Amino acid sequence: MSALFDKHREILDRAVTEIRARGYWSAYPEVPSGRVYGETAKDDGEKGFQALLNRPFELDQPVDGAPVGKEASPYGFDLGITYPTASPTRLIEAAKTAGHAWARVPVEERVGVCLETLARLNGESFLMANAVMNTTGQSFMMAFQAGGPHAQDRGLEAVAYAYDAMAAIPGVAVRWEKPQGKNPPIVVDKTFRIMPRGVGLVIGCATFPTWNSYSALFANLATGNATIVKPHPMAILPLAITVKILRQVLSEAGHDPNVVVLAADEPDHPVTMDYLTSEGIDLIDFTGSAAFGAVVRSHARGRPVFTEEAGVNPVVVTGTDSFRGLTGNVAMSLSLYSGQMCTAPQSIFVPAEGIETDDGRKSPDDVAAGIAKALDKILGDHDRAMAILGAVQNPATLTRVAEAAKHGRLVRASTPVEGETVARTATPAVIAVDAADEVWREECFGPIAFVVTVKDAHEAIRLAASTVAEKGAITASLYATDEALIDEAADAFGRAGAPLSVNLTGQLLVNQSAAFSDYHVTGLNPSGTATLADAAFVANRFSVATVRRPVAA
Amino acid sequence: MSALFDKHREILDRAVTEIRARGYWSAYPEVPSGRVYGETAKDDGEKGFQALLNRPFELDQPVDGAPVGKEASPYGFDLGITYPTASPTRLIEAAKTAGHAWARVPVEERVGVCLETLARLNGESFLMANAVMNTTGQSFMMAFQAGGPHAQDRGLEAVAYAYDAMAAIPGVAVRWEKPQGKNPPIVVDKTFRIMPRGVGLVIGCATFPTWNSYSALFANLATGNATIVKPHPMAILPLAITVKILRQVLSEAGHDPNVVVLAADEPDHPVTMDYLTSEGIDLIDFTGSAAFGAVVRSHARGRPVFTEEAGVNPVVVTGTDSFRGLTGNVAMSLSLYSGQMCTAPQSIFVPAEGIETDDGRKSPDDVAAGIAKALDKILGDHDRAMAILGAVQNPATLTRVAEAAKHGRLVRASTPVEGETVARTATPAVIAVDAADEVWREECFGPIAFVVTVKDAHEAIRLAASTVAEKGAITASLYATDEALIDEAADAFGRAGAPLSVNLTGQLLVNQSAAFSDYHVTGLNPSGTATLADAAFVANRFSVATVRRPVAA
Repeated sequence: MSALFDKHREILDRAVTEIRARGYWSAYPEVPSGRVYGETAKDDGEKGFQALLNRPFELDQPVDGAPVGKEASPYGFDLGITYPTASPTRLIEAAKTAGHAWARVPVEERVGVCLETLARLNGESFLMANAVMNTTGQSFMMAFQAGGPHAQDRGLEAVAYAYDAMAAIPGVAVRWEKPQGKNPPIVVDKTFRIMPRGVGLVIGCATFPTWNSYSALFANLATGNATIVKPHPMAILPLAITVKILRQVLSEAGHDPNVVVLAADEPDHPVTMDYLTSEGIDLIDFTGSAAFGAVVRSHARGRPVFTEEAGVNPVVVTGTDSFRGLTGNVAMSLSLYSGQMCTAPQSIFVPAEGIETDDGRKSPDDVAAGIAKALDKILGDHDRAMAILGAVQNPATLTRVAEAAKHGRLVRASTPVEGETVARTATPAVIAVDAADEVWREECFGPIAFVVTVKDAHEAIRLAASTVAEKGAITASLYATDEALIDEAADAFGRAGAPLSVNLTGQLLVNQSAAFSDYHVTGLNPSGTATLADAAFVANRFSVATVRRPVAA
Repeated sequence: MSALFDKHREILDRAVTEIRARGYWSAYPEVPSGRVYGETAKDDGEKGFQALLNRPFELDQPVDGAPVGKEASPYGFDLGITYPTASPTRLIEAAKTAGHAWARVPVEERVGVCLETLARLNGESFLMANAVMNTTGQSFMMAFQAGGPHAQDRGLEAVAYAYDAMAAIPGVAVRWEKPQGKNPPIVVDKTFRIMPRGVGLVIGCATFPTWNSYSALFANLATGNATIVKPHPMAILPLAITVKILRQVLSEAGHDPNVVVLAADEPDHPVTMDYLTSEGIDLIDFTGSAAFGAVVRSHARGRPVFTEEAGVNPVVVTGTDSFRGLTGNVAMSLSLYSGQMCTAPQSIFVPAEGIETDDGRKSPDDVAAGIAKALDKILGDHDRAMAILGAVQNPATLTRVAEAAKHGRLVRASTPVEGETVARTATPAVIAVDAADEVWREECFGPIAFVVTVKDAHEAIRLAASTVAEKGAITASLYATDEALIDEAADAFGRAGAPLSVNLTGQLLVNQSAAFSDYHVTGLNPSGTATLADAAFVANRFSVATVRRPVAA
């Protein structure tokens, strides 16, 4: 047996139970508290991050190229970190060689290595928070939670699915005995060995480098696939730290650390296509834009491809018993990380005739104005605004916000956070448009909301759901007091593959997707091909090699 | 609950147990016996088949085109059956509409419909045997077993996987309750609905129209996908009978029968590309040639594609304690259905120095001669030869056999079965070649075996396994008395994704793949992307639609 497996057995068993129960559970505490993580943890994380800046990142893996690295914090400074590089041929070869041995490591030991790594990553959550914050632009709190414990939960969830799927294959020889009437039976001994696909490529994104990659990375490793981690060139550090810890755990446990290697690059010299087109890559995970997602999918060539891309997430407003709750909740959803979450809403549909609320009838303009007012309120204070909005990861997002404002009636202009002098910031723009306009149909990544006037509630549901089917969506939200409308929307969005949240007027935001409970992305519309996580996310990462030997009668 | 589900609950529960146990089990008796199937069953099946000939096949489904049908029995007569047709647009629309309702039918009821259909198909196994025999050219016994009960077992196996996968999703609302320290928890009720992908396309083959399609067909139906069944134009009848029975069960149970529709065509006017390129198809299953498999895969566009294609199945001979058993078993494997099984061996590797056997040292020539002799023996009698070989499905196979014989030293010529006057027959050709020759590396579909001289046993394993990785293989076979060589081969073929059978000298043939025990095709080499059946075969045919509703504190 495996010592690491035994050490973490309890948490694994619980995780396997929870992926079927799908209630609330989290393995890693989300509160960045000294009582949980140690009184010096926050300072240690900050110091650890500072110590990494302006120098080569120490990562002992195959090298045959010049160091790269052009990361810049959206909080106003260059990281100055460089990473070792090697040619794709070299890295793939190293991963392949390590993978051959890794494939033969017993399932329990592989799972043990994954769980030990997740535990160590949890211990480095404050370091990770600084790394994620200063690459993605997330606020510290979000960077800690989404970059640390929530990402670790997603990793554990994937390990649980992988273990559960592999445990369904008999681990010891099976005797197959076929009766032959009056004659002796045919007796055959069969052994079934889990065989991974080979070398996986995990392509990370710039906004949630760990949360969006850990499911794939740990699913790959648990099922025996070596993995090349290709971070977004502007968010390398969080995955470099991850790869470093993984390689340490692998080495300590006596395995070839090249089971996981980092493929870093710079924006001007991207290397992803070299890997995508290589025959040496056997399965692919991708998180990022729909445009590059299409490129990735077009290079599948029969290989499994798991993507999380993007979409146009709708909010359908047909009535509420808490107008203040509605506007406040939507405003928070639009503001959180400046609309840079793949789960953030974009298009808010309101019937032309207006809606009934606890505060009287509200026209589309009233709804837009209410959301704008709520935005002003929650973003009025500099520190609070920064804690909610964080910074804008990519300068191109600011251009997009400015462009979008020209395509309708500007209800609320996007502005930098007042008094902020270093971070790149933008509050949400609210733009009123008509259903016939085209602008709201396309994804406008960033802090941009369109309030779309539609004929009536049924048309709002129909239009929103058909747009989901056509353009994709990762979330959908509905406000309604009529149960029949809720059923109608549940059907329409279910068919279109967007998880639906109904009447969010309190703390829960449509943006939030919890491991062990929420299925993130359905794969049923263009927003992605895979779910984080479900059985389909792991089942195709391995197959079974059988050996049959007849037993003499 | 569902009456059909209750009726078949016991067999389902057993099947779900067996897919994890993977010992011997079969739900449907494989013996074509009157005591099992009824004393008149054989005659009834024959008469039922005769009554279908030379007239339109009665199938009440959408029609807007002219009937088609050009099937010809390899046993020497035209079937003269025509099938109704409709444009792809019409059939897809009908399936889509039916599918929307089918997606809402409870899982248990869908599974019940599948199980009832399999039970009725079992009752029609003699009719099916005649239909399969006279389209594929299989012998009556094989047509009965592979076309009937074994195919039904594969269907049941897929239903069991589908049910097991769907049962892992909570069927009732789940309360998610997240603690908030001293504040009240956030409480959300979540419902999870199984959502199928939509409309599936199942493309059948000419050799095993039911066995190779039932896994996909029943996996689709159980998971809620409407399905367009596109048979090979020369093997429509078996799937037309299947579709007819399915539609009857659906109608009787109150469902729209267009959940399953037949898309028949003729060789000169193929319609498959119209479906493959349609936006209305959401997932694709294909069995057939590697050449068309590549076309299918190239049209994936992010849709799940499950293929079983073809390969070059190796036999590695390094030694045996039963030379007579070896040659007899290999000869039977080559002869069964005239080498037209996707599991049939093609390339037989023998070390140049010869092998140790119970009958003394045998050179490659001795091995080839031994196999030839065994072939002559088992095929010497007309009736026995016909029972083993059956007929050749496609005339092009005869040309291929003649061509292959020119590419090496002919040890045994392929001939028609002596005395056979109506069926298209061909006994296996045995051709001696060198490892350096190219001819044995490509699939030569049909009764063709190459005995390949290689340097030594290690080189035989290496060469065979590398060819599997490059060209694909669905089976591999090894003869060895040295356990170290067996381990070496298990590793090499495992990595290349070919299930390995060791020292088959008795009744079990490498060709045979049993439902509930053998994983047919691994998806790890070019012979196909999917396994019949495993969790991966069903998991991606559906996703989960979530509805989240906060519960007031």
